[in-house]
Amino acid sequence: MSWRRLLTSTPIRLSLGITALTTTSFIAYKYGQSSIISNPPSSLFPLESTTKLSSLPPPKYCPQEEIPSVVKKIEELGISVTNTKPEIEHHTGSEFTTHKPLPNEVPQFIIYPETTEEVSQTLKILNEYKVPVVPFSGGTSLEGHFHSTRSGVVIDTSKMNKVLQIHEDDLDVVVQSGVNWQELNNVLKPYGLMFGTDCGPSGLISGMVGTNASGINASRYGAMSANVISLTVVLPDGTIIKTKQRPRKSSAGYNLTNLFIGSEGTLGIVTEAICKVYPIPKYETVAVVQFPEIEDSTNTVAQVFKSGIQPTAIEFLDGDMMKCLSYSDYTTRKWSEMPTLFFKIGGINKTVVNENIKILKSITSQNNAKLFEFATSDEEKEELFSARKNAFYAMKDYGKNEIHENVSIWVTDIAVPLSKLSKVLGEINQLIKKSSFESIILAHAGDGNFHADLFYKPGERKQVEEIVNQMIKLGISNEGTVSGEHGIGNSKRNFLQLELGDDTINLMRKIKLAIDPNRIMNPDKIFKIDPTDRGEY
Amino acid sequence: MSWRRLLTSTPIRLSLGITALTTTSFIAYKYGQSSIISNPPSSLFPLESTTKLSSLPPPKYCPQEEIPSVVKKIEELGISVTNTKPEIEHHTGSEFTTHKPLPNEVPQFIIYPETTEEVSQTLKILNEYKVPVVPFSGGTSLEGHFHSTRSGVVIDTSKMNKVLQIHEDDLDVVVQSGVNWQELNNVLKPYGLMFGTDCGPSGLISGMVGTNASGINASRYGAMSANVISLTVVLPDGTIIKTKQRPRKSSAGYNLTNLFIGSEGTLGIVTEAICKVYPIPKYETVAVVQFPEIEDSTNTVAQVFKSGIQPTAIEFLDGDMMKCLSYSDYTTRKWSEMPTLFFKIGGINKTVVNENIKILKSITSQNNAKLFEFATSDEEKEELFSARKNAFYAMKDYGKNEIHENVSIWVTDIAVPLSKLSKVLGEINQLIKKSSFESIILAHAGDGNFHADLFYKPGERKQVEEIVNQMIKLGISNEGTVSGEHGIGNSKRNFLQLELGDDTINLMRKIKLAIDPNRIMNPDKIFKIDPTDRGEY
Repeated sequence: MSWRRLLTSTPIRLSLGITALTTTSFIAYKYGQSSIISNPPSSLFPLESTTKLSSLPPPKYCPQEEIPSVVKKIEELGISVTNTKPEIEHHTGSEFTTHKPLPNEVPQFIIYPETTEEVSQTLKILNEYKVPVVPFSGGTSLEGHFHSTRSGVVIDTSKMNKVLQIHEDDLDVVVQSGVNWQELNNVLKPYGLMFGTDCGPSGLISGMVGTNASGINASRYGAMSANVISLTVVLPDGTIIKTKQRPRKSSAGYNLTNLFIGSEGTLGIVTEAICKVYPIPKYETVAVVQFPEIEDSTNTVAQVFKSGIQPTAIEFLDGDMMKCLSYSDYTTRKWSEMPTLFFKIGGINKTVVNENIKILKSITSQNNAKLFEFATSDEEKEELFSARKNAFYAMKDYGKNEIHENVSIWVTDIAVPLSKLSKVLGEINQLIKKSSFESIILAHAGDGNFHADLFYKPGERKQVEEIVNQMIKLGISNEGTVSGEHGIGNSKRNFLQLELGDDTINLMRKIKLAIDPNRIMNPDKIFKIDPTDRGEY
Repeated sequence: MSWRRLLTSTPIRLSLGITALTTTSFIAYKYGQSSIISNPPSSLFPLESTTKLSSLPPPKYCPQEEIPSVVKKIEELGISVTNTKPEIEHHTGSEFTTHKPLPNEVPQFIIYPETTEEVSQTLKILNEYKVPVVPFSGGTSLEGHFHSTRSGVVIDTSKMNKVLQIHEDDLDVVVQSGVNWQELNNVLKPYGLMFGTDCGPSGLISGMVGTNASGINASRYGAMSANVISLTVVLPDGTIIKTKQRPRKSSAGYNLTNLFIGSEGTLGIVTEAICKVYPIPKYETVAVVQFPEIEDSTNTVAQVFKSGIQPTAIEFLDGDMMKCLSYSDYTTRKWSEMPTLFFKIGGINKTVVNENIKILKSITSQNNAKLFEFATSDEEKEELFSARKNAFYAMKDYGKNEIHENVSIWVTDIAVPLSKLSKVLGEINQLIKKSSFESIILAHAGDGNFHADLFYKPGERKQVEEIVNQMIKLGISNEGTVSGEHGIGNSKRNFLQLELGDDTINLMRKIKLAIDPNRIMNPDKIFKIDPTDRGEY
């Protein structure tokens, strides 16, 4: 509705849609200015379903010097607070990523709540004084998720690390969000159960929820969005909500569970989760297949899915990655430098798994496979899959020894529809070969998600970034996403905009502002919330 | 933050969090009243993350008599509009449900857009004039989802019924939202593919998205939330958004896809969907197992899942339901009136399926099974499963002939964790046996979701409703949900509140008001949006 039309409506009609006025208008009223009507800011009458960045006033936060006195109120409640140098450093950046915080992006305090109630008390106070809050989980983020772009406090969930309930017959568990997924697996093992998502070893449930993490086994078990039944969340104003009850299936209102999964801590702090778990496969084997061309491998993956085989994992390693593996000491094998697929296939017994292997072998040979090996014992299985498991370390070894002792690795996270994977990987290979950089490609092929990772030396960051940008644009133009599993953080905001368009981002921003009107929760992540934000990304 | 504290802050600090003022305050300003500061309505400073119903002014809509001239503007754009009596009747209520619209709950016009762009043009106009909009899909809703509680227009999606793309290698399809899922299956069959969700035969994708529908095959393929990759949605103000790109896995920002799935048309109109599809199992059989006690059957289901078997369907029919089946002519078999499980088990070949059947048989005999039959041919499979498929019709036959020619059936939709299923069904049975009503119980046992359906005669509605209310409360008190698959509509709002609590509902309301500030989209569904709404539910 245009502004003009509103003004010419009847008074009663006029009022109907006006559910909110901005800061500006309130100040105008309170302090006697009179310019609101004649020159309305675009957010004055938010009849729109979305919020444009330009319609927002800049957020205003608690002055830096007042934060200590605010945090003192939290400490007085008996909640653990620290600001020692090592703690501050640990919560400022990460060794895993090339995307480093700016010198001023340092938190003032780290808060360690131990219960949902403590998180609620903490957020009530921080919201009241408008202190920026960065949630912190395993600290393995690659995209600047926990950078303190507005220096305030970090809330670290790692002390909320209890497995609360195991429901063997329901195949679910209730956990505090600071539980590490590998530790959860240790607890589940005696029950013959396992967690479906297997991201980096240090990942905690809270961060895995935040980025909708996945990993190797997502081919079968899906990402976190497929593995969480319900969440307990503390909203920015301290309100505690539970998104759902415990049944696996529900049509009870909005799917708030999945709204929080992948929201990167911008909408609240997840304190508990009810997660699905799975029976550990009664029998499992690993098959490794090598192909002359990338296309042969992706055709294989498509045909495997159409055959009805459901591998637990389908991992692609390109020739360069196989070279790194042969170079390293992480596996005893020396591999041909060819495109390679690693399959993990589990089932209810050996007969069933072998039937799968038979069909798999036939598909791969139709697709020109040069090598097909599968494990016939647990030892062989471990040995074969160790190549995939140690890929990251092998890559680091190779880079350090063969490229530069201070080598960096830029990890990308593009996903495309499977049918476009070989074409996109081919074009990316050409892009890289034209440059002076060495690279490896690792893909969760079952999901069309690949990490094309570039080695670069000190001083080469700008050039490598240019190539990465081209790679991402190539992915997006092939119906792809800039992030298959790592999230957006503050390093991929511009690409998210390219991928989804302004209107979709503006809808996300509308939801963000509704739930977090003070914009305190993990500011500047996923999309901009401040019109004066001049961040390149 | 308390009001007092705001008043004693400095002016600049005061302004920071004030991102919205309400209707009331605007009127006060514009028309010279001065009571805002001394007596602020609770929504004046929405620093909260949630919206309480009591904080809202009542919505105001376009006067009834002005709606025809608004709709004329839509018709002038070449968009199909009708208000014939049969069309109005078809879009007013449903034969499927006992929950009927009130006499005044009748739409004025039915609009049939054929493209996303037409939906956008339509909503822009309706939003401008604040005309209530009820989205209409297959019309099979049981919970009053398409009741015109505020008489306005219905937007019927059924003319947007094209299958736009089939990506065989990606196992996905792009469809307009008015596609019927069975017709989609007909299109997919030549490719050896199928859609995962199988609700009632008339269901269209738009409505299935709206209620997060599922059905018999959800045991393996999940509900709609597990089967949609991306949605194209027209927001209430006419903005067109696409929630995601086409890769199956993505961590690209908020999961807007799942925000719209299950939102029952309260946040916008879904016009296109990218859906996952699956290979039709290469071999499939059906097993029917009868048990002396309900508990034996639920123990079986839990052990089947723990064994790693993934049945396509696990359906439970109680003794009463088996009686109706034997009574009807829908199957040739006469069945013992015992708790019965129907398993559909598919796989990559006959060997694999038979291995599953072997393990299944051993589990059932450990759980006191009295009968175990499985199909060895396609004909036997169809014949066995036809019992489950025709259950609803058999039940109607029985009721009509044996209870009353104008018998009604009240269909409930509770889901509980599997481990609580037999206990809850036992208690519900006791509840029903104490009454004079006959009943049947059908359960999607793999999901803990059951339909305990009561037959009642004209004049008995009040009594049967009382029993249903007790059943639902029993479900909720056992960690259950009031809706496993049919949604909330306007018939279960009070139970949703009981299930999830005020704060969770208030968060849903906050999101609703952010996206649909005029409250035009499917008003009064899922939760109340009008403080003067005195609806019992």
